[in-house]
Amino acid sequence: MAAPDDFDAWFRLLQTPGLGREGARRLLAAFGSPEAVLAASPAALTELGGPALAATMGRPAPECEARLAAARAWLAGETLRHAITLGDPAYPPLLLQTADPPLLLYVQGHTELLAAESVAIVGSREATPQGLANAREFARGLGEAGLTIVSGLAAGIDGAAHEGALAAGAATVAVVGTGPDRVYPARHKALARRIAETGAIVSEYDPGTPVLPEHFPQRNRIIAALARGTLVVEAAPRSGSLITARLAAEAGREVFAVPGSIHSPQSRGCHALIRQGAMLVEGVDDVLEVLRGTRPAAALSAVPDADTPADPVLAALGHEPATLDALLARTGWPTAELSARLLELELDGQLARLPGGLFQRRVAG
Amino acid sequence: MAAPDDFDAWFRLLQTPGLGREGARRLLAAFGSPEAVLAASPAALTELGGPALAATMGRPAPECEARLAAARAWLAGETLRHAITLGDPAYPPLLLQTADPPLLLYVQGHTELLAAESVAIVGSREATPQGLANAREFARGLGEAGLTIVSGLAAGIDGAAHEGALAAGAATVAVVGTGPDRVYPARHKALARRIAETGAIVSEYDPGTPVLPEHFPQRNRIIAALARGTLVVEAAPRSGSLITARLAAEAGREVFAVPGSIHSPQSRGCHALIRQGAMLVEGVDDVLEVLRGTRPAAALSAVPDADTPADPVLAALGHEPATLDALLARTGWPTAELSARLLELELDGQLARLPGGLFQRRVAG
Repeated sequence: MAAPDDFDAWFRLLQTPGLGREGARRLLAAFGSPEAVLAASPAALTELGGPALAATMGRPAPECEARLAAARAWLAGETLRHAITLGDPAYPPLLLQTADPPLLLYVQGHTELLAAESVAIVGSREATPQGLANAREFARGLGEAGLTIVSGLAAGIDGAAHEGALAAGAATVAVVGTGPDRVYPARHKALARRIAETGAIVSEYDPGTPVLPEHFPQRNRIIAALARGTLVVEAAPRSGSLITARLAAEAGREVFAVPGSIHSPQSRGCHALIRQGAMLVEGVDDVLEVLRGTRPAAALSAVPDADTPADPVLAALGHEPATLDALLARTGWPTAELSARLLELELDGQLARLPGGLFQRRVAG
Repeated sequence: MAAPDDFDAWFRLLQTPGLGREGARRLLAAFGSPEAVLAASPAALTELGGPALAATMGRPAPECEARLAAARAWLAGETLRHAITLGDPAYPPLLLQTADPPLLLYVQGHTELLAAESVAIVGSREATPQGLANAREFARGLGEAGLTIVSGLAAGIDGAAHEGALAAGAATVAVVGTGPDRVYPARHKALARRIAETGAIVSEYDPGTPVLPEHFPQRNRIIAALARGTLVVEAAPRSGSLITARLAAEAGREVFAVPGSIHSPQSRGCHALIRQGAMLVEGVDDVLEVLRGTRPAAALSAVPDADTPADPVLAALGHEPATLDALLARTGWPTAELSARLLELELDGQLARLPGGLFQRRVAG
């Protein structure tokens, strides 16, 4: 089992009723180790935390030992399962620098990635197709540039970010709000398995912990804290992604946001962030420039160069809608050939047919 | 003729070879009036501007008197034609506060509008259909809120802004880079006539002045200077609209920019402005809030309320693409009826058919 020798003491300390993370950290600072806290005299505990603490310490909830056994069973159940405590040298250094670091992290996968240079990519569960494509492309480009992609395994943007990183052969870390043995949403089970193979699934919740809404903002704080910066691809106003962005800003990390149509509710949250000072980004280079202080090779651009598509019809179309007549004039192609090519491009998802006989390019991921 | 008594002197002063606006203003400050400058002794002129100035002053270009006669003929040719000099009490006060005010303005229309509270709306000549719709809607909403809409009569966003203002029965001012008697592009002739009827066409160039590329940045400086703020709706990088925005910022005016897709070259200029500190705006209220320090009634919103369309199919669709199956489930309508309605909406331009059998709303102006 990849758990430290003092795992049981950490686990029992955290199970002390009424003792939050902050209280536990205060006791650890005073006594030096979880074993010392658990063995402390009632008088010493009363002095530090009042009589209520003295009364509950060492009297964990009745189910504590069963949960501990379950946690140990999970850790022993497979290779690449780890428990990392706040006192562990492997504890993620950026997480340690934040206001509310978890005391215990469960990891399925490669723990060293938690210390890698990383960027969080988060956003709406109800993303638009273009938003999903953008998330994939940013993740792919940033992954190719050597960054680990952190996200929350949620539906929508999160899932697309993990997918993009995997597609690039890059490392990706999923911070989940359930126990490390659960996958939410269930349809991300295969994705979670692929992430665990080359990346890592991280949770501060015990194995078996189900989906609880109040855990998601807590999960978001870990996403923001693990990464050098957080990129919000699409977000509705008052959404969880904006919480992640705020926590990132509060932790002194960079916040990036992708702009979009003023008519798209999924872009409103990003626009609000930009107004509040988040950096508007149009592509991977914008993110890298801030995180690394350099402008990398053009090959790393997340967004395919919009002005020079390889296809002559797409090149003739550009990014504005155009009529068939205009395209005939621009390409000089025979009508039948051009129509056939337009249909191919439409079926391939590279082109949309708009009302009024107009054709418009779609930039896909 | 609606020209001041000293019009001839202003005209001749401006025609002095080699004397720019700045030189003319310096001489006016020294001598008090254009007549006094023209009558100044060579010694006095040499002292102020060197012997070259003394040699040319009072020796205007050979065509000067013919041009003056043409200008007087234009002014006398129709009612509502005016010449306003820097010394005129009717000179636009905001223009006077800028670094390089024109010495002479030709106006066709209602001169009092040049002193009205106004906002400039500018952007790309090669705008997208959505960009044009946005320009119209911002102009309409800001016009309904009582602001005069200033723009440049150019193709694309400028034209749409004037149209939007006219549609709202609001005042609009077109600052042109040609003489006040020319219309560029020619297809905006009818639009220019409508603007002159209820608004104003403004130029610092003599009647007869043709289209000269170097005049457009100069024209942009007047647009920026007349308005309390400049809104850029769509702009390519390195475009004239960005010059207008920069000049507005340098004159201490507000700069607003509309965000858009990261894949649209027409939004890149706006995104660059936002990065440089321009305010990202999603609707009319955002502009009014800054210019007036208030949030006006919701009825003034430029963007139709995206979340509550009157049509039940549009309501079911929302702002994300959806399949026919999804829409059948959401509306509960029979397939034939729903298909017919979708086609109607598509033909009406309210809906686009995307590859993959998806339908997506279009927000039109």
